[in-house]
Amino acid sequence: MAGVKPLERAAIVAVGSELLTPSKIDTNSLFITEQLNLLGIDVTSKAVSGDDRTELAHIIRHVLGRVDLVVLSGGLGPTDDDVTREAVASVLGLPLAEDPDITTRLRARFVARGYPGPMPEINRRQAMVPAGARVIENARGSAPGLWIDHEDRVVLLLPGPPRELRPMLTELVEGSLRARSEGKPVVRRVVRVAGLIESHVDEALAPLYREWERQPIPIAATILAAFGSIELHVSAKAVPARAGEALDAAVAQVVATLGDVVYSTDGRLLEKVVGDLLVERGLHIGIAESCTGGLVTSRLTDVPGSSRYLDRAVVVYANDAKTELLGVPEALLIEHGAVSEPVALAMADGIRIRARAEVGVGVTGIAGPSGGSPEKPVGTVVIAVSTDVVSGFPGRRSAKREGGSRTVRTFRFHGEREHVKLQASNAALDMVRRQLMEKGSGGRG
Amino acid sequence: MAGVKPLERAAIVAVGSELLTPSKIDTNSLFITEQLNLLGIDVTSKAVSGDDRTELAHIIRHVLGRVDLVVLSGGLGPTDDDVTREAVASVLGLPLAEDPDITTRLRARFVARGYPGPMPEINRRQAMVPAGARVIENARGSAPGLWIDHEDRVVLLLPGPPRELRPMLTELVEGSLRARSEGKPVVRRVVRVAGLIESHVDEALAPLYREWERQPIPIAATILAAFGSIELHVSAKAVPARAGEALDAAVAQVVATLGDVVYSTDGRLLEKVVGDLLVERGLHIGIAESCTGGLVTSRLTDVPGSSRYLDRAVVVYANDAKTELLGVPEALLIEHGAVSEPVALAMADGIRIRARAEVGVGVTGIAGPSGGSPEKPVGTVVIAVSTDVVSGFPGRRSAKREGGSRTVRTFRFHGEREHVKLQASNAALDMVRRQLMEKGSGGRG
Repeated sequence: MAGVKPLERAAIVAVGSELLTPSKIDTNSLFITEQLNLLGIDVTSKAVSGDDRTELAHIIRHVLGRVDLVVLSGGLGPTDDDVTREAVASVLGLPLAEDPDITTRLRARFVARGYPGPMPEINRRQAMVPAGARVIENARGSAPGLWIDHEDRVVLLLPGPPRELRPMLTELVEGSLRARSEGKPVVRRVVRVAGLIESHVDEALAPLYREWERQPIPIAATILAAFGSIELHVSAKAVPARAGEALDAAVAQVVATLGDVVYSTDGRLLEKVVGDLLVERGLHIGIAESCTGGLVTSRLTDVPGSSRYLDRAVVVYANDAKTELLGVPEALLIEHGAVSEPVALAMADGIRIRARAEVGVGVTGIAGPSGGSPEKPVGTVVIAVSTDVVSGFPGRRSAKREGGSRTVRTFRFHGEREHVKLQASNAALDMVRRQLMEKGSGGRG
Repeated sequence: MAGVKPLERAAIVAVGSELLTPSKIDTNSLFITEQLNLLGIDVTSKAVSGDDRTELAHIIRHVLGRVDLVVLSGGLGPTDDDVTREAVASVLGLPLAEDPDITTRLRARFVARGYPGPMPEINRRQAMVPAGARVIENARGSAPGLWIDHEDRVVLLLPGPPRELRPMLTELVEGSLRARSEGKPVVRRVVRVAGLIESHVDEALAPLYREWERQPIPIAATILAAFGSIELHVSAKAVPARAGEALDAAVAQVVATLGDVVYSTDGRLLEKVVGDLLVERGLHIGIAESCTGGLVTSRLTDVPGSSRYLDRAVVVYANDAKTELLGVPEALLIEHGAVSEPVALAMADGIRIRARAEVGVGVTGIAGPSGGSPEKPVGTVVIAVSTDVVSGFPGRRSAKREGGSRTVRTFRFHGEREHVKLQASNAALDMVRRQLMEKGSGGRG
């Protein structure tokens, strides 16, 4: 694209009156920023407009004077309060006309989904296109995106639902947007850490931060605490190969400093790391959950292909369920209480044996808000992991040696019910990860 | 404040370069919106600026022309990249001067906190005040807030850390801001709908929208599609009692129009509605999940007190798990396949009987990305609900009459694995809700 100024500065505009209420926030801009940064395009401002043609037009006019690229998300639906197309067309002085190809696709989509009756006529609004705009197909929804060249600048309209916006933008970043950028991306890596708090991670890494600032390719670092897990984001802006090398070195320093609390340096979530370890080692897992109510299993089955290592799991809230489904002795429940290390271990053993798996997990605790006591307050969670595998990991259902290892830990989590569940599910997955790592690296059998 | 125009429209501007990265988002605006709405002040736009004097000045100049109140958060720290004071002063043409009282307080605070040595001179930047501004004390941090009257308008500068911003704004809402507002808060209600798509809801409600606009207390409505569920947000601006009445009437019209697809008009999520119905009717539920992998159970156990109606649930990925844990006949699995209506029904019956519950749920399907076939593509999910209760709902474990009702439906969901799981969990919870509602309203037994 000789002669065309590369895109360097972008503004993101989110459209939707709900984003101006106390309960909804624009999160698309995080993904959009990440994607644009891949091409070295900086986001220099963000704005949110309600479903108001005049207000939105004002915002577009304002940002258009200050950036090379305007990315709008939302307001492309079929209803009257979807105003993005009209606002953009009016600011750029472009007439809107119905694109019959889009209408045809909309009707076909309506029929394919088995909705009753003909497509409401109102949906044809989604086929309106400003003159000269390029239509970007939406594989997952009805609203197509639009790419508009305006002098040296680009105005991009994307649908609001993240699952529609994300693949469309990803494709543009690999194609049309890449062709218009100068190719010095901001490269980022994410290091994920389990079982430490933010300020401890920060303290441990402080000397590295100072070193990174003075490097030929400086590295910026941000720590985020998210859902009971810590994420360290490191980034560098340079040609990709050099930025990548600098970041690889930085990530290696972090791992050397923090050790095995680091569970992922390549973007994988904890459930995926655990799933991958199970597949690698040819193992199966059985899960018995009380206070987490199925969350550990649900997270593990979010991973495609999880049926390779998970056959079954149980949620055992009641004591008789623990006894009937897992063989936890009644006497144990009476003597120690349901939230206790002996019971968690019996749950882990019980599900492992009954699921004919090599790894068993038992989670029992008090998620709250009620049910706590002075000795076992709300947030007390006991997690056990039981394995019957020996070094070398024999295949499933092969001759088994009992006497594999068993680990149990008692945690005290803080926060509301859902937050306790989430932290407990992190801890359970992380205990499985550690158990498997230990085995994989030589093993104690 | 006779003669002064009340504050009606506000813009929120968050300042901070970190808010323009892929990992941080401005959340202060949610709290600010909630507080302003209490006074009937609408937020008509939001913006985020980096720590860039020129860019921020542009944004302030732009929004100042369109609202009565500009609330800025952040950029009041002591360092060079804290630019909010300078940007505001330059836009409003006000000279900046050091306020010696602030400097004194800053020095005292420094000593009180036991920091070593004298206060760095750079911290005196926080004592710079635009001429005519009123200083708002910050009980929890060093940066004071600033209130600036500009013609009929108000520009408010608040510190970025939420724990500093919140008490300052709360106090202003009770004092100076209340005195400048007309005192008609924005009241909101949320109506939640299952099993319909956005455009159908919109089409059905279009006549109501038109009626609401012309009412003495007009009602604004926004439709949101979120997680396979539809939310209708309605709001009115009036003295609270009158707004509440108008909204109650509007919500009743929506329910009359849409019927029993409306599952909540009081903010409750679907899992809470189902949990409440189970408690009301004194029933217990057993859940058997295949493709949803525990998500239905996890959502239901997000509700505090769910142990009152849930004793146990099972995740049965493998066929032998379905047979062993639920008694699904092997012959049925072979003849119809695991994803079939007879199997879903057998799962629902099996868990209901084995959990000694009155309601059983079976979910089986293909979450993807692999495992689909031409007849049963990815996204095919079969859900069954089985009950053995009769009208009047006898207590649990009382003499049971077999021959309760059984419902089974086959769905075709679209999207990725996690999205299919989520939609399937919505559909399962909604089928339970409908079954219980039917029973509750007279019942067929």
